[in-house]
Amino acid sequence: MQIAMIQDRIVPAEELDPVYLDRAMFFGDGVYEVARSYNGKIFALEEHLERFAHSLSGIELTGVDMGLIRSRIQRAFDAAGIANAMIYFHITRGSAPRNRVWDPSLKPNFFLTVSELHDKPEDKAKGIAVSTFPDWRWKRCDIKSLNLLPNVLACTAAARKGCAEAIFVNEAGLITEGAGSAFFAIRGRSLQTAPLTANILPSITRQFTIKAGRNIGLEIIEESLTPEQAARSDELLVASTTKDIMGVVRFDDKAIGDGTPGKYTKLLAQEFRSFTV
Amino acid sequence: MQIAMIQDRIVPAEELDPVYLDRAMFFGDGVYEVARSYNGKIFALEEHLERFAHSLSGIELTGVDMGLIRSRIQRAFDAAGIANAMIYFHITRGSAPRNRVWDPSLKPNFFLTVSELHDKPEDKAKGIAVSTFPDWRWKRCDIKSLNLLPNVLACTAAARKGCAEAIFVNEAGLITEGAGSAFFAIRGRSLQTAPLTANILPSITRQFTIKAGRNIGLEIIEESLTPEQAARSDELLVASTTKDIMGVVRFDDKAIGDGTPGKYTKLLAQEFRSFTV
Repeated sequence: MQIAMIQDRIVPAEELDPVYLDRAMFFGDGVYEVARSYNGKIFALEEHLERFAHSLSGIELTGVDMGLIRSRIQRAFDAAGIANAMIYFHITRGSAPRNRVWDPSLKPNFFLTVSELHDKPEDKAKGIAVSTFPDWRWKRCDIKSLNLLPNVLACTAAARKGCAEAIFVNEAGLITEGAGSAFFAIRGRSLQTAPLTANILPSITRQFTIKAGRNIGLEIIEESLTPEQAARSDELLVASTTKDIMGVVRFDDKAIGDGTPGKYTKLLAQEFRSFTV
Repeated sequence: MQIAMIQDRIVPAEELDPVYLDRAMFFGDGVYEVARSYNGKIFALEEHLERFAHSLSGIELTGVDMGLIRSRIQRAFDAAGIANAMIYFHITRGSAPRNRVWDPSLKPNFFLTVSELHDKPEDKAKGIAVSTFPDWRWKRCDIKSLNLLPNVLACTAAARKGCAEAIFVNEAGLITEGAGSAFFAIRGRSLQTAPLTANILPSITRQFTIKAGRNIGLEIIEESLTPEQAARSDELLVASTTKDIMGVVRFDDKAIGDGTPGKYTKLLAQEFRSFTV
């Protein structure tokens, strides 16, 4: 590469900050995690690190020292001094002139942010609306990668309709998951969600929601739902790291239950919270 | 966002270069083009700009002044002073703290590089090997987006097998296209490639290859091929901006034709070159 241009400014190659050549920029060639803390303690950090290792392995990004990552996360979290924090971090394959084929000697780039997490008690009390969007994502959604354009398009389309989350529906007409959450239905005394065998992210909050469901005596059913089945469910909820368990009271144009978060959703949220103290 | 961390270094939010918050980093939220010049003249720039506008519209990235983009490209190309250059450029939705839902007031980021393009006459003479890879890409490959992780994985897997390109095969068992090229077979006196109605990038070189095929009297067939049909073809070739028309002499483990670029491939390459002068 001889010259670069940033907006209107021509930059000689040798003066270009390597961040502009990050493979995340060119290809989304990296993986990420979002963890959170409750009252000064990072929740489920080991689970997040384990999934992160799975994602790294999924894109064949090798040689990352997970002990070093753990200590960086803890150091940044301590430095921020935020009791209820959202911790985002990613690793990319490194910076180099653009070439789809990677050079195995590249040095990975690590980036992290710590932000104050504003829990929304009013959303928890009232529940949220969600809307469906075609699942345009790639076929390796078990990898938490930086290729998130379908999620961006889905979430923005949902937000324009006043919805707080988009729910993906695949070509077979089945709900896979939310654009940033796992999706659950309560039907009778069962808690139903798509199986992880499909093209689904192994959500950590999904795992804790299932545990909470068992604890309060719900039957767990791992089977995909159609949008019609979802809309006729007794209760719906989404589960994610930043929102934990959030009742869904509108699914596309249909009101769910009596239009407020249901009995089991509240019990699940309460049970989930007991894991975090 | 309160603090960031880059590798081992903690950076207060207010000191962080906004490039680290580029939505291309977090989401691959942008679109790109690669154009080239022959002997000091950019080839098919208007076609590239037209496709770029289509991609921008596909991700709802609005308000980009295409006249400004054209003048930036020309200015950077002139400044580089390279006769046979590869020009890469992308626009991303801008820099902001991470949020899937975009703020429509964000200012897009433009980035461009100009590099010397080293045509490989030995590859042209000998032809290249290609290998198949599952088409894991998202469902909007008509948009030339920065979500290219499947292409990265495919190309690297191909390179490890000594192949210069990966050819995607979808779940229906049909070839879609190359990871960075259009894919063609010559069967008898016909030139066959997948139709654009599938999940295919509207390749500009594809369009010129079809034109070249018509000019030399080949029948054009826009129908998908299976890998078995491809392997039994008289000739195979890939077409891309940087390599124009390149004969394929090995497809997975099968030699194609006599193991050198075929008669029609050479005629097509010759005809294609006549468009570039």
